[in-house]
Amino acid sequence: MATTDSMNNWLDSVKWDSDGLVPAIAQDARSGRILMMAWMNREALQRSAELNQAVYWSRSRNRLWHKGETSGHVQHLSEIRLDCDADVIVLQVEQVGGIACHTGRESCFYRVLKDGEWQVVDAVLKDPKDIYQ
Amino acid sequence: MATTDSMNNWLDSVKWDSDGLVPAIAQDARSGRILMMAWMNREALQRSAELNQAVYWSRSRNRLWHKGETSGHVQHLSEIRLDCDADVIVLQVEQVGGIACHTGRESCFYRVLKDGEWQVVDAVLKDPKDIYQ
Repeated sequence: MATTDSMNNWLDSVKWDSDGLVPAIAQDARSGRILMMAWMNREALQRSAELNQAVYWSRSRNRLWHKGETSGHVQHLSEIRLDCDADVIVLQVEQVGGIACHTGRESCFYRVLKDGEWQVVDAVLKDPKDIYQ
Repeated sequence: MATTDSMNNWLDSVKWDSDGLVPAIAQDARSGRILMMAWMNREALQRSAELNQAVYWSRSRNRLWHKGETSGHVQHLSEIRLDCDADVIVLQVEQVGGIACHTGRESCFYRVLKDGEWQVVDAVLKDPKDIYQ
């Protein structure tokens, strides 16, 4: 019978940084839009794979962060990829609610460099006050 | 007349980490495929914007890394975005040669988690020996 250890060999292949973290990029599986980048520790990645939902490590709150736990905007995972250096993750996600950003936008990347300024180019889809109640 | 300082205010808006770096994600502008993630310091981002080509900071070689300087596989930039926390960059790129990864693949994210293993699912398009001569 496979032990828990042998079953988690894939987690040992990941090159965690000195804080035990790797960047995880969430991409909308349908549109290809990059929604956000957050961080995962070993437990976050393991739980993401078990749940088929994105679980990150919140560096500001210093705890596991099940994306959508407050807003309901969970991310269902269809694929988890690892890069050549084994230190970055890409998630293909279905973003519930169509909003990944805490500002109420689809994507956290809503500012474009133009004429020497970061210009906001994406609309707020829902007021954050109505998201985090 | 605008001074160099005032012209680079947009660089001051970026929240560099304790090493003076931010992650930069390169996405193929046409296909939407995520090609790679690397790191930028202030100078790398400034030069990227000036050149309209991706310039990263190589953490292993501890120097600026003009992507494609050896392979010729430069990345032409059509857009630079910043996220809500101002600590992650997304680049829309045209990948010369169609190969971003040093393994000779289109994307560095060529391994998928499947049945508890990272399985290689993308082909090598060109032998690295023929890329780095």
